[in-house]
Amino acid sequence: MTDQPDDNHDTEAAFIDATYCALCARGYADLTMQDIADETDKSKAALHYHFDGKQDLLLRFLDHLNEDFLDRTADPTGETPADRLVDLLRTILDADGDDDNQFTTAFMEIKAQAPYRDGYRERLREVDDRLREQIGRLVAEGVDAGQFDADADPEVVADHVVTYVHGTWTRSAAVGADVDAMRERLVAYVDSLFAADADVSVAPGSAEEEANGGSEERETDAEGGDGSGRADDGEDEEVAA
Amino acid sequence: MTDQPDDNHDTEAAFIDATYCALCARGYADLTMQDIADETDKSKAALHYHFDGKQDLLLRFLDHLNEDFLDRTADPTGETPADRLVDLLRTILDADGDDDNQFTTAFMEIKAQAPYRDGYRERLREVDDRLREQIGRLVAEGVDAGQFDADADPEVVADHVVTYVHGTWTRSAAVGADVDAMRERLVAYVDSLFAADADVSVAPGSAEEEANGGSEERETDAEGGDGSGRADDGEDEEVAA
Repeated sequence: MTDQPDDNHDTEAAFIDATYCALCARGYADLTMQDIADETDKSKAALHYHFDGKQDLLLRFLDHLNEDFLDRTADPTGETPADRLVDLLRTILDADGDDDNQFTTAFMEIKAQAPYRDGYRERLREVDDRLREQIGRLVAEGVDAGQFDADADPEVVADHVVTYVHGTWTRSAAVGADVDAMRERLVAYVDSLFAADADVSVAPGSAEEEANGGSEERETDAEGGDGSGRADDGEDEEVAA
Repeated sequence: MTDQPDDNHDTEAAFIDATYCALCARGYADLTMQDIADETDKSKAALHYHFDGKQDLLLRFLDHLNEDFLDRTADPTGETPADRLVDLLRTILDADGDDDNQFTTAFMEIKAQAPYRDGYRERLREVDDRLREQIGRLVAEGVDAGQFDADADPEVVADHVVTYVHGTWTRSAAVGADVDAMRERLVAYVDSLFAADADVSVAPGSAEEEANGGSEERETDAEGGDGSGRADDGEDEEVAA
């Protein structure tokens, strides 16, 4: 409780990491401060010392997610604007490290709470706005370079892509649809925007053949977070605790 | 408690309608059986008599939603396959009657719970599968009729559209993005699939000019369910009750 500034920072970072782990393990709806403390070697009292209650913790967790997202997506790599756009989309929709879509599922719960909780919607909108601007800029650069069709409106394409990205996360969480296949569909959509005379190609992704192959089954049987620690608590008073 | 079969059916239908109203008013997370009974002139005891607890009620509510969705979308109207596809998309993404996106928001909470609750995912997947099949069939008919480009793969287009539809609902709930504008973007995407020599056009929708206009701001300031009865309950133990 008498941490120095650096210790404070380290402790708070540990609690933010613990929030991520607790969300993956338990989901958002039933999450308690104790669950988060239990993911560290620190006490619940220490958690309450560093964060002004659950709302403060969750808002700072969302700030951390935003910073991490913006860091990861700030500088997509590639020779051309189209390459950088595809690299950006593959970075955003990289399912690696999200076992059983646990975080995607928990994050969807957070999004569903946005209309009810102060500060959530503003933070989600910040990423939504930033992503649309970044994609729009890459499309505009591609049009200027003669790579994308001159009819491709950067704002229209950006809005379409961002809507599709949200849909990918939602279908993954709600029905267990395969993120890799949906991601490569989106890459194919970007590919369809290329100017007819442009000499461009997009590097194949892990699921590209599947995504472009035509007739095979699109859905995986992955059931995601079943058995991930959320009790189905039957008959108590709340319809959904 | 001594209802005749017809009365039973009417009473249960009234409780299903009440579930819809209670979800719109309060969201899913805090919903109680009492909230649902309060939307009718019947007692909570009567609700418990007709439904075997909250899980049974919610599953039958989802069954009702599926039936309603399939009824509304079974027979899209239009002269051509493309017309019928656009009519279908406008029916699905008709924001009328969902004041402040209340039901869209509540339904997103339900989707977020799908990995944790028995039977939710199966019901959501039923609609997802059915919608992809229906869209794929319309695209295939359009290709056969020479209306859609022969390169348009029905399954690929159907999967892309369904993912986008989920994204529309999610962005509406999470960041308050405008459903009408997103819907007309999707119609414009369908338009882009038309064969170059096809003599087809799509009837304009209410937001088509906006969706195709290029540079105006895409997001509305609609804040959705703020103040819709969900308390922000500050300091209690659960991070999100």
